[in-house]
Amino acid sequence: MTSDLSSRLCRAQEQAGAYGVDVLLVSPGADLRYLTGYDAVALERLTCLVLPAEGEPRLVVPRLERPAAVASPVGDLGIELVCWDEADDPYALTAGLLPAGASTVAVDDRMWAVKALALAAAAPGARQVAAGSVLRELRMRKTPAEVDALREAGQAIDRVHARMGEWLRPGRTERDVGRDIADAIVTEGHVRTDFVIVAAGPNAASPHHELSDRVIGAGDPVVVDIGGTVEAGYCSDSTRTYVAGGIAPEDFAAYYAVLLEAQRTQCAYAGPGVTAAAVDAVGREVIADAGYGEAFVHRTGHGIGLETHEEPYIVAGNDLVLEPGMAFSIEPGIYLAGRHGARIEDIVVCTDSGAERMNRTSRELVVLADGPG
Amino acid sequence: MTSDLSSRLCRAQEQAGAYGVDVLLVSPGADLRYLTGYDAVALERLTCLVLPAEGEPRLVVPRLERPAAVASPVGDLGIELVCWDEADDPYALTAGLLPAGASTVAVDDRMWAVKALALAAAAPGARQVAAGSVLRELRMRKTPAEVDALREAGQAIDRVHARMGEWLRPGRTERDVGRDIADAIVTEGHVRTDFVIVAAGPNAASPHHELSDRVIGAGDPVVVDIGGTVEAGYCSDSTRTYVAGGIAPEDFAAYYAVLLEAQRTQCAYAGPGVTAAAVDAVGREVIADAGYGEAFVHRTGHGIGLETHEEPYIVAGNDLVLEPGMAFSIEPGIYLAGRHGARIEDIVVCTDSGAERMNRTSRELVVLADGPG
Repeated sequence: MTSDLSSRLCRAQEQAGAYGVDVLLVSPGADLRYLTGYDAVALERLTCLVLPAEGEPRLVVPRLERPAAVASPVGDLGIELVCWDEADDPYALTAGLLPAGASTVAVDDRMWAVKALALAAAAPGARQVAAGSVLRELRMRKTPAEVDALREAGQAIDRVHARMGEWLRPGRTERDVGRDIADAIVTEGHVRTDFVIVAAGPNAASPHHELSDRVIGAGDPVVVDIGGTVEAGYCSDSTRTYVAGGIAPEDFAAYYAVLLEAQRTQCAYAGPGVTAAAVDAVGREVIADAGYGEAFVHRTGHGIGLETHEEPYIVAGNDLVLEPGMAFSIEPGIYLAGRHGARIEDIVVCTDSGAERMNRTSRELVVLADGPG
Repeated sequence: MTSDLSSRLCRAQEQAGAYGVDVLLVSPGADLRYLTGYDAVALERLTCLVLPAEGEPRLVVPRLERPAAVASPVGDLGIELVCWDEADDPYALTAGLLPAGASTVAVDDRMWAVKALALAAAAPGARQVAAGSVLRELRMRKTPAEVDALREAGQAIDRVHARMGEWLRPGRTERDVGRDIADAIVTEGHVRTDFVIVAAGPNAASPHHELSDRVIGAGDPVVVDIGGTVEAGYCSDSTRTYVAGGIAPEDFAAYYAVLLEAQRTQCAYAGPGVTAAAVDAVGREVIADAGYGEAFVHRTGHGIGLETHEEPYIVAGNDLVLEPGMAFSIEPGIYLAGRHGARIEDIVVCTDSGAERMNRTSRELVVLADGPG
């Protein structure tokens, strides 16, 4: 673990140098965990890894969080801790740790603006850029150990989908079903439930609907999009669309078949050497050819790893060429506003020859029984 | 509800004008919820309320989140929605909505740096400042309805503390106890568990320790600091220190008594017309006089409302004069590194004549029985 982290820190420094960045300022969140193993909570007090392109990294921490930092892998990495007390100015302190003459400072993509602005004021000679352009070069390419963690997460969320018949029944509300799913996400192997979408009937036409008090009706198409985080910090994310008993709406089976063909086509197409935009396009074409082009209102997918949404994004205009180790969702959807909708989502990892699916539950339409599960 | 929100939007515009800010750019999170009622999830796609000091507000949203925005109070507020599609540049779009000649743009404190930097690049003529300096003037002063929500949250977390004997016993791990508490936070009236600290024995000396696999020993002092969010969006946060069966360490009762006197003194002292720094100082003095000054390593408290930590901070150097409606924690602690520690925390709201405690469980040391609860 420590040697992996040391090597990540070195590679981040090399990338910073290659991008003309003098120093990376990394805040609590996925980047800090990726580089140091320290899973710090993002709060108002400044915690910041100061990682110069050349020289030793230092971690600025509030004194009361020093024990937590020392107990994390940071303690074994030999990173010097620079503590600040409650009445100190941590921004001036951090600015004082920048390399002499630093002109380009990369701040963590997820750093709070109020902190980035305070750091800019404390180091007025330096230009700020987003650190994501540097760090994505590392985080996008998963190691075998990271792929193992994504596979573990995928299997855990698959076990939840496999149990959907226990909870998803006509007469129950989305919220009640969602609560059961949230519990199962943890009992099936995640340390945390990240999100639960249960979108029934017309709500299934809203891609980012969450949970409502709508009572699920017999024959409602129900989009269930769920995810959690496993111990190692990696995320799951899988969507299946169910029909909760009864008879689905007349045109539903027809467009579900189109969607399934699109998603399968994209999974088969994704692999090394093709662009993110092309993966999006091959699915969009299947859906458009069947007359549903206007109903596929979002991109095909997003990268996944220590965050549910990260690079690479599978979207028109993204000419990034996929490489082995890149992990992302393939999740086309068809949404008929005011009526219903469907989405199918797997996480895939680019291999040497194609893409491995992390999610393996059936993608065929599942019609759940009416009765008690 | 809608009229409250409309009035908040107007007051935010007035404050912006008074601070010389041409426009506020508000991202998903507590500020957006406070101003519009829209409880949007913060993700990588830009959602941004463009609120000029003069003129009509507009909300930039990804098209796939339009249904969620319309279903929120935003739909009733008459805020124009400006949707963007997956291949659009939402930053250029947002920059185009800024008032002509805007020279000072206030970005949400919690906006991701990568978004603030993209907005800065899209509007190169404007200087960015943090919106918190404007919005805190509104959010710090709670209305009676907001205080009701904090009282409801306080009562809910009190019910969890009252049940601690069911879970906190020697022989169990911090993590197991924490899991039970997390469940109870929801069953006792919150919609979400925000954090659970169970810090036993030497871990109690680390103020931001969370949960470990440490087995709780008989006689261990255990700091339990827990909080959640109620339906209306307001947060609870209360700490009690327990002794889990057995006999506490020899010096523990003595310094616990000092801590209790300090916390009581601070609760009695807090009220309109005194400064945040003075509230901190009166407790620090009690603890220092008893010889434990070095062991109180953090500020006295933080504001609370739609966020667990917000303005006002009760800390040395903060000369803010308290006013009725300001809500904050009073949570002194004494930490003996490597040995044990204690903290007592109540949320209080400044009234016309003093401070009302939102938490009412006993602050005396609670020694839980050894046996099964």
